[in-house]
Amino acid sequence: MYENMKTKLNKLKNNKTFELSVVAVIIISALEIGAKTFQLPDSAISVTHILDIFITLFFLFEISVRFIADDDKRNFFKKGWNIFDTLVVLISLIPINDSEMALLARLIRVFRVLRMISVVPELRVLINSLLKALPQLGYVILLMFIIFYIYAAIGSFIFNEINPKLWGDIAISMLTLFRIMTFEDWTDIQYETMEVYPMSWIFYLSFIFFTAFAFLNMVIGIVVNVMEDEHAKMRQETQEASNIPTIVDLHKEIYELKQIIKRNFPDS
Amino acid sequence: MYENMKTKLNKLKNNKTFELSVVAVIIISALEIGAKTFQLPDSAISVTHILDIFITLFFLFEISVRFIADDDKRNFFKKGWNIFDTLVVLISLIPINDSEMALLARLIRVFRVLRMISVVPELRVLINSLLKALPQLGYVILLMFIIFYIYAAIGSFIFNEINPKLWGDIAISMLTLFRIMTFEDWTDIQYETMEVYPMSWIFYLSFIFFTAFAFLNMVIGIVVNVMEDEHAKMRQETQEASNIPTIVDLHKEIYELKQIIKRNFPDS
Amino acid sequence: MYENMKTKLNKLKNNKTFELSVVAVIIISALEIGAKTFQLPDSAISVTHILDIFITLFFLFEISVRFIADDDKRNFFKKGWNIFDTLVVLISLIPINDSEMALLARLIRVFRVLRMISVVPELRVLINSLLKALPQLGYVILLMFIIFYIYAAIGSFIFNEINPKLWGDIAISMLTLFRIMTFEDWTDIQYETMEVYPMSWIFYLSFIFFTAFAFLNMVIGIVVNVMEDEHAKMRQETQEASNIPTIVDLHKEIYELKQIIKRNFPDS
Amino acid sequence: MYENMKTKLNKLKNNKTFELSVVAVIIISALEIGAKTFQLPDSAISVTHILDIFITLFFLFEISVRFIADDDKRNFFKKGWNIFDTLVVLISLIPINDSEMALLARLIRVFRVLRMISVVPELRVLINSLLKALPQLGYVILLMFIIFYIYAAIGSFIFNEINPKLWGDIAISMLTLFRIMTFEDWTDIQYETMEVYPMSWIFYLSFIFFTAFAFLNMVIGIVVNVMEDEHAKMRQETQEASNIPTIVDLHKEIYELKQIIKRNFPDS
Repeated sequence: MYENMKTKLNKLKNNKTFELSVVAVIIISALEIGAKTFQLPDSAISVTHILDIFITLFFLFEISVRFIADDDKRNFFKKGWNIFDTLVVLISLIPINDSEMALLARLIRVFRVLRMISVVPELRVLINSLLKALPQLGYVILLMFIIFYIYAAIGSFIFNEINPKLWGDIAISMLTLFRIMTFEDWTDIQYETMEVYPMSWIFYLSFIFFTAFAFLNMVIGIVVNVMEDEHAKMRQETQEASNIPTIVDLHKEIYELKQIIKRNFPDS
Repeated sequence: MYENMKTKLNKLKNNKTFELSVVAVIIISALEIGAKTFQLPDSAISVTHILDIFITLFFLFEISVRFIADDDKRNFFKKGWNIFDTLVVLISLIPINDSEMALLARLIRVFRVLRMISVVPELRVLINSLLKALPQLGYVILLMFIIFYIYAAIGSFIFNEINPKLWGDIAISMLTLFRIMTFEDWTDIQYETMEVYPMSWIFYLSFIFFTAFAFLNMVIGIVVNVMEDEHAKMRQETQEASNIPTIVDLHKEIYELKQIIKRNFPDS
Repeated sequence: MYENMKTKLNKLKNNKTFELSVVAVIIISALEIGAKTFQLPDSAISVTHILDIFITLFFLFEISVRFIADDDKRNFFKKGWNIFDTLVVLISLIPINDSEMALLARLIRVFRVLRMISVVPELRVLINSLLKALPQLGYVILLMFIIFYIYAAIGSFIFNEINPKLWGDIAISMLTLFRIMTFEDWTDIQYETMEVYPMSWIFYLSFIFFTAFAFLNMVIGIVVNVMEDEHAKMRQETQEASNIPTIVDLHKEIYELKQIIKRNFPDS
Repeated sequence: MYENMKTKLNKLKNNKTFELSVVAVIIISALEIGAKTFQLPDSAISVTHILDIFITLFFLFEISVRFIADDDKRNFFKKGWNIFDTLVVLISLIPINDSEMALLARLIRVFRVLRMISVVPELRVLINSLLKALPQLGYVILLMFIIFYIYAAIGSFIFNEINPKLWGDIAISMLTLFRIMTFEDWTDIQYETMEVYPMSWIFYLSFIFFTAFAFLNMVIGIVVNVMEDEHAKMRQETQEASNIPTIVDLHKEIYELKQIIKRNFPDS
């Protein structure tokens, strides 16, 4: 009987209408979250309450269907997306009546929108490829962090007394340096310190050059990775077509032919 | 007689002088629109009125010529550019005397400049290739929208009371986030919320990282698409040159040769 | 005797020391221009006067040497760089005593620094390749201009009364749009017009999207051009190596071999 | 006995635990530098003093080990990273009690963090490849400097009296131009000079176009370099696989075969 139900649920899971209704409920959930940010009349607020309960129950139902229909229950929670889906559902089941926790409850519901990524396969592929690109960039990011750390240390040692709000300690200084990297009113900061240390423009310009260079290197690193993947694909295509004879095969054939002829013409 | 006229109009349509005069009228139309934004003396204003009528009549004449000369009248309005041209002409035929509608009339005339694109083939190709690139980027744009939506929801939940002008509802928040993505005075917004929530820099930095990463991915996606198109072109060129013998042909020839020799030398 | 002098001047022209001294004088000239922007003591000013005369005479001497040493005097002034060098020298020969013209005289001397480009061959190559890339981008730049023109016309029609300093006429509007394209305090402009037309954010966002897309297209266009040049180079290298036998040659050889054997073995 | 010690030290140098402990001490040193930017209690300050002495001694020990264990002592100081490491250690050995020099002492200790790069091989490779890319970009950087110099000279001649803080002399003008290149409040500068010279927008726009074009050229230059390196690698891979027979080998074989047959069939 359990097997029977499992087969039925599996059918339901792979049903096109079911898949689309999951996407529809996620979109409704997203619209509801958006609507809540506007000032709503009381009647609309009570509608959202009912909607909230419906969405929570639907998600609970959907994750249960997917869990029961899965053949390999041990590995179900080894997949990142399944853990994410389950957590989003479970956390929104916790009853929060306390008004102070209301904000937290709202925030957690926002993450339901992220379920859009776990449900649409193309988005999942996109996110996976983004995550896969990250470790390859590890050392460039480490280098950038070292540049930030050194400049932040120098900045908070020298400029601390000029403007503690910007250069108070190494953490604030790193935030200020990030601001400088985005070119956001960076000259205001520069002119302020140049009144005390006229040569401090060297600090800002060298920082901008180093980070711009490291950033450029990162972008080129990604492009080269992508190109190498493309080349690897092309090479594989060529190798798959390799049951056609190669030059090596030809060489062997011609050699054999020559041996036959030589054997039959004793004078040569 | 209709056929006769059609042939004549077709000749006219493809006449180089006619094509150039269409471009000339579009440029005059554009210059007139530009001139109207300056304060003009009364005499000049009456000139623009006469010019307006002339341009409208000329465009009406040109679209008629193109319609009559076309062999396949059923599909004439299936081409986007023809619909666009006809609409621009027809709308500017509507007489607008009402002073309140004067602004609208002016705006519609501005779109006449867009006819430049429909007339110059190179620009049409450019626009078509831009439009063709868009659907390939569909999922990256969807991902970016999801990121914007989630951050806008969080932003308007948490920062709403700090500055309702920036975080009032989800729509205003998305506009504010777009501003942050362009780095436009984003630290002002950040410092304002950091006074209430000192850790809110995480919100801004993570948002900048996610959007920058998604944007980078979009650019690389376009570059890879372009590269694959290039490779596909190169492969096609190679295949078109394939009536020259391949290694497979050589292999076959040598095999046949060997069979002949073997048949004639019984000892081998 | 003239021929004799010509040969001597040609030797001088190609003399390494002479070439280096030209570069040295250009650098001295550039340093002098830079020095003049600082407040100098009277003694230094009189030094710059003497230096000015020396540099002018040296440049006059150098261009004369190059002209006389040139074999093909008719085409001497067909080369852009020669015209440029001669103009810079000739204009600085005009005596300017009038104090009002002093600024102009100074500006003309600034262009002497540009002679650095005409003298260093690597820089000349760089500039030439930049100029060569421009016409290929012609249509994208035309498209961008059309986008700017249409948005500027719309902007000055609708927003004219809100802020005439930014949207007064089509010329000022195009400058404002360029400012928006560089993201320079663009939200200030947006918030100002949104108070009157709350939907005017569509104007700004659509403009940013269109220009960003056209700009991206331009960059990719350049990259593809560069890539095609690279591919063309690679193909040429392969073709230059083509006096080695190809598969077509092999095919011909094997065919001939088969004919010989067939003729000698009547049974086959 | 010296040889004995050298072998032992060499073993120590290549010991995994020793390598990791060097990295650990550098990280501790970095954390200590960061901690010093915060306001610390007296007890923590005395801890940092002891830590300082320990780190200095450890670095002195490590550099000595590496020097003694090195076989080729003459070339030890020809490697940039060795010189850098030794300098960082030696300078921090100088006792600084003077309170005025305390800031300098702190700054020198910051450079210890840079030792992270000399110790982690992947970061060293990254920095080396960055440095190797620089000379290839030499002429683009020179061109950019010439553009900056000419515009700065023009700017300080014309705009000097409008705002001496921005256009006082050629050095300040170059800093202002760098600010304009980063689009940092550049329109404020433009509007200020446009009040006196209404056409001065040409100065700013042309400068932005030239620098953007030169910058684009630089980026494309790097990308092309990277691509050529990739192609060179691919070509090398192909050549390394070249002990397999080529078409030239086949041609030779078939030619020999034909000669044998021709010799044996006198009629052909």
